[in-house]
Amino acid sequence: MVTRSTIMDTNSFRAEHAAALDHETKALTEKRGEVLGESYRLFYRNPVHLVKGKGQYLWDAKGTKYLDVYNNVASIGHCHPRVIEAVTAQMQCLNTHTRYLHENILSYSENILKTMPSEIDRAMYMCTGSEANDLAIRVAREYTGGTGIIVSQESYHGTSELTSGCSPALGTGQVLANTTRCVSAPDQYRIITEDLGHWFADQIQRQIDDMRANGIQFAGFLADSIFSSDGVMSHPIGFLKQAVDVVHRNGGVFIADEVQPGFGRTGDAFWGFERHGVVPDIITTGKPMGNGIPVSGLFAKHEVLSAFSDQIPYFNTFGGNPVSMAAAQAVLDVIQEEELQQHSEEVGAVLKKELTYLMNKHECIGDVRGAGLFIGFELVSDRNTKKPNKKLALNVIEELRNQHHILTSVAGPHGNVLKLRPPLAFQYSDIDWLVNALDQTLSNVRMFD
Amino acid sequence: MVTRSTIMDTNSFRAEHAAALDHETKALTEKRGEVLGESYRLFYRNPVHLVKGKGQYLWDAKGTKYLDVYNNVASIGHCHPRVIEAVTAQMQCLNTHTRYLHENILSYSENILKTMPSEIDRAMYMCTGSEANDLAIRVAREYTGGTGIIVSQESYHGTSELTSGCSPALGTGQVLANTTRCVSAPDQYRIITEDLGHWFADQIQRQIDDMRANGIQFAGFLADSIFSSDGVMSHPIGFLKQAVDVVHRNGGVFIADEVQPGFGRTGDAFWGFERHGVVPDIITTGKPMGNGIPVSGLFAKHEVLSAFSDQIPYFNTFGGNPVSMAAAQAVLDVIQEEELQQHSEEVGAVLKKELTYLMNKHECIGDVRGAGLFIGFELVSDRNTKKPNKKLALNVIEELRNQHHILTSVAGPHGNVLKLRPPLAFQYSDIDWLVNALDQTLSNVRMFD
Repeated sequence: MVTRSTIMDTNSFRAEHAAALDHETKALTEKRGEVLGESYRLFYRNPVHLVKGKGQYLWDAKGTKYLDVYNNVASIGHCHPRVIEAVTAQMQCLNTHTRYLHENILSYSENILKTMPSEIDRAMYMCTGSEANDLAIRVAREYTGGTGIIVSQESYHGTSELTSGCSPALGTGQVLANTTRCVSAPDQYRIITEDLGHWFADQIQRQIDDMRANGIQFAGFLADSIFSSDGVMSHPIGFLKQAVDVVHRNGGVFIADEVQPGFGRTGDAFWGFERHGVVPDIITTGKPMGNGIPVSGLFAKHEVLSAFSDQIPYFNTFGGNPVSMAAAQAVLDVIQEEELQQHSEEVGAVLKKELTYLMNKHECIGDVRGAGLFIGFELVSDRNTKKPNKKLALNVIEELRNQHHILTSVAGPHGNVLKLRPPLAFQYSDIDWLVNALDQTLSNVRMFD
Repeated sequence: MVTRSTIMDTNSFRAEHAAALDHETKALTEKRGEVLGESYRLFYRNPVHLVKGKGQYLWDAKGTKYLDVYNNVASIGHCHPRVIEAVTAQMQCLNTHTRYLHENILSYSENILKTMPSEIDRAMYMCTGSEANDLAIRVAREYTGGTGIIVSQESYHGTSELTSGCSPALGTGQVLANTTRCVSAPDQYRIITEDLGHWFADQIQRQIDDMRANGIQFAGFLADSIFSSDGVMSHPIGFLKQAVDVVHRNGGVFIADEVQPGFGRTGDAFWGFERHGVVPDIITTGKPMGNGIPVSGLFAKHEVLSAFSDQIPYFNTFGGNPVSMAAAQAVLDVIQEEELQQHSEEVGAVLKKELTYLMNKHECIGDVRGAGLFIGFELVSDRNTKKPNKKLALNVIEELRNQHHILTSVAGPHGNVLKLRPPLAFQYSDIDWLVNALDQTLSNVRMFD
């Protein structure tokens, strides 16, 4: 059983760090405290005040250039001209909603459904991944007649009441729904087993059995197939197959939360679930879909959707509007025309190799894993015991930000995994910046204090 | 006790209407059926295929110009250049999220909080009104320790699991949460009482008592103060005051859902709750906030927010991002600079007067009510019995669309109230178009078939 992390000891600015800030940063953090709800968190003990972005680079107010190795929303690159052009052109023309006819939603739906298995034949649109997952769970419940949802131990699926109740990553302050069951993530590094797929499927079956014993009918398994907040679980390819079979044998649906792995991110496939040779019943998308314009989607088999659709009308005022769809189409076009999936695979493979080389020099690197430009870089106190070194990880990301101007963050139940997830515009030439910075940082004994 | 409406007999395209469509419209509706989830609904038996918008006007693919008397999202006018400029400029610069510092969210928060009572001192941002109401209910529950939510009988507050369960307007297919209680809307036209405020407050108290009797602790009253989907309840001004007092006396919070009445729409105030002389504990906003760019907000007293904030981090990936905030600021600037609230009051008053004159000629008009550019126009079979004439209302909106190129829709539990809610750019010169069209349509005996 892993411990759930809490926000207080992860990558975030806290009041105790205020004294060390420069005047301008201090003023901005104070202003936030005065006008924003206290639920907001800032990254870094010394928060970054960004003013400009281009491709994989960001600039702060002092003109310092940063390498972005974290942000997957601006997936095709910050301020991509194609998205700006498409959004501006559509804004000048019309922006209404789905109760009138418009071509954009239809042409985008045709194009995006072509990237999915043929069984997935219906599209719906929202504004956030939270809204997509919220609806997906409701659809799964209507279709199966059950309520029980299984998620991984440190997963995050959204901010709404329903999705928060399925998001243990929010910390112990967030009460999970009594219909939620958690399984340990399929962690190839820590779990000793001959067959991780079998092991994981067995976890799922046990939770289904536990639900049944407690009078809860199983509805579905909701998973991000790259297990981003669990600390990036990418291998062995195909480990989800047996789990999805168990889900189906027990009458549940598999909801593939593609907010993290989707849109070519993992390099070897356009969608994360494809890496596992499975066909989901429902697919949800979000973050990178519009490169920053709020748009998300739910894609499903029509027979799975119909139980919900027959009962309940769904209207999302901004969801699927002509501007959102123009942004989404531009993103899809750029991914395909610039071959960003292949790019992610190739650059990601070189990056992973270079990071793996660092293991020869730095004993504190326990594991380097990932697919495409989604890499988990795990820091430990001892390679034999694999004891997580969260403090080191937090020190490293602060040093990367302060000394090397590289933005990243941490993930995983122990908070000791660097989540390296740059915009797909990341280039070979950026690898040196990142790898050298990590090499220097890990060579710096202060990091281990 | 009023009957809850269902989608099947309101303003919507259904398969039986397909045969009458022209080739192009038929092809588009068929394509929707092939690629979109069946929950989607289209307005009108003959759906409108829009391609262009400007101010209060919309154009279809054949070049026909429509007067928009329905859409409150493009509140300052379709394709307003100030919003396009602000969004484009910010997209060219940077679009990230609230975990980095950025001025836009801070300056907008300061500016919007200035329009609210001083007790409301904290801002949070999401992408949709549903997300804002979902969070508002969670905040209310954390603060009060209760779960029970009171809404009006035909209200609509969102599409998420939590907000759908508080939205009887979704029809009988949507099961309400067992913590939801409904009160009849404060309908000055139909409810015979000396003091509507007292009557309404009494409804609230009864539901709180009913909750208590069923072991449910009261958390709050969630209301749109113009009661849009209940059929537009605007008068007498101040009728909410006693209800809010009852809410507070019983330990609950008042959540003002300003998605409909907010941002100057009612003319006599910037926010709908101001018309009633009450201070909400939580305010939610949505639709008109970014003129079509997905942005919504939650504004609250810091002491109400803190119970939630102390427990649970809240991060909405796109919420409050620099581009959304630029759109929201442009909308606020235009409302203030173009004095759209005053404009709404003045033009709305003339429109209401002209519509009221029509009552002298047309017996079927039971009531004309509203505030600013938010008018309810109620059609009845008999003025004495006030029997709702839904069929007439549906025929009228179809005739307005087909013969007079005016877009509107219906509302209310009986579906017989025309909801007249144009962009605030609506001009005196547009009044003739609308009033003459209504006059002609109601003179047309075919309407009464």
